[in-house]
Amino acid sequence: MPDSGRKSHRDYPWTGCGSDKDLAGCRFSLYPLDNRYAKIVLGALAKVDVSKIFSQTDALSTVYRGRLGQVFDCLSALFVHSYRENLHVCLEAQAMLGCPGDDDTDQPPPADDLIVNRKGLLGQDFLVKAKLALYPLGLADYLPIIAEAFDLAKNADLKPKIIHYATMIEGPVLKVFDYLQDVSAMAQGKVSHHALHFTVSVNSPTGK
Amino acid sequence: MPDSGRKSHRDYPWTGCGSDKDLAGCRFSLYPLDNRYAKIVLGALAKVDVSKIFSQTDALSTVYRGRLGQVFDCLSALFVHSYRENLHVCLEAQAMLGCPGDDDTDQPPPADDLIVNRKGLLGQDFLVKAKLALYPLGLADYLPIIAEAFDLAKNADLKPKIIHYATMIEGPVLKVFDYLQDVSAMAQGKVSHHALHFTVSVNSPTGK
Repeated sequence: MPDSGRKSHRDYPWTGCGSDKDLAGCRFSLYPLDNRYAKIVLGALAKVDVSKIFSQTDALSTVYRGRLGQVFDCLSALFVHSYRENLHVCLEAQAMLGCPGDDDTDQPPPADDLIVNRKGLLGQDFLVKAKLALYPLGLADYLPIIAEAFDLAKNADLKPKIIHYATMIEGPVLKVFDYLQDVSAMAQGKVSHHALHFTVSVNSPTGK
Repeated sequence: MPDSGRKSHRDYPWTGCGSDKDLAGCRFSLYPLDNRYAKIVLGALAKVDVSKIFSQTDALSTVYRGRLGQVFDCLSALFVHSYRENLHVCLEAQAMLGCPGDDDTDQPPPADDLIVNRKGLLGQDFLVKAKLALYPLGLADYLPIIAEAFDLAKNADLKPKIIHYATMIEGPVLKVFDYLQDVSAMAQGKVSHHALHFTVSVNSPTGK
């Protein structure tokens, strides 16, 4: 279809001005497949140092907002803190940058660049499987950006495999989260608004 | 950023020709928060009549491919068949139409329009909470399509509420799945490629 000129979010009163800010966000749900899921989720959330970001939990999910690196630092910490031997846990997450429909509420604390969780995660190198789907929005020629995300996974030795509607990867947990952050940073450099949906899974009984 | 002319998927050897077909797809994972999750998931998958679609399960998720109405018929049946009183179950799904990066493998059986699961679900009207994020791809002016999805939820009395990066809704389970199908059908009429990510949750201990 023809592309009409891109409007500003100000043309839509129902939208805010999130796209005016370099504010990364991630909405996610953690699913420990176990009767103790509530205790495991709340325990993992409590172990994450969220002093550098905004964090809010509702009935369906939790949202982190802040600088991209600090949001992914907290997200990777959350997943590592939920780890139990032989417990199948999945994280379903939606990372976003530059959404013109977002608003400027719920800002993180005054910014610095400190990554506060990673040092406590070093040595955590359990293997995970993951899948991702990247959506660069608002431009016609978006396929090359998706292709670059696939190439980044190859370069990171994460064994990317194209499946319908997504790319499957596998590797050490922190390397996988670092890659997902790199994909979002790459997309941020090429398009004003993108979403990155991903699933990270550990201890799945399905080996395939 | 400026929009360059949209390229055909044929400009990208790594992509297929999914966008040449009116083939809807949905990749999803079902999460019963219970020690018996594997039995519940496999039992629900087995109860769905998938004779009208293509279905394949891998280590992370299951993909359904076929006509939009038949894919959603199967997906809603899957969720209803996973229902247990007081059991918290979440479905995380990615519906897609017109992906130029898709290929034409894994086609459904020769098509007819029969909806084969719904009749067995009537009377199942338990309440669910859900969230959705719609991504119309390849065009600059995508916000009005997202706004229309929000209006469809208002018209369906699903109490839409904007949260960061998504819209939260609630209502009877079949009405919610019918709405999600309507959103995909609406987007299909306006853009050649879109993705619709959604979470459907029942019996969450978090009432908020």
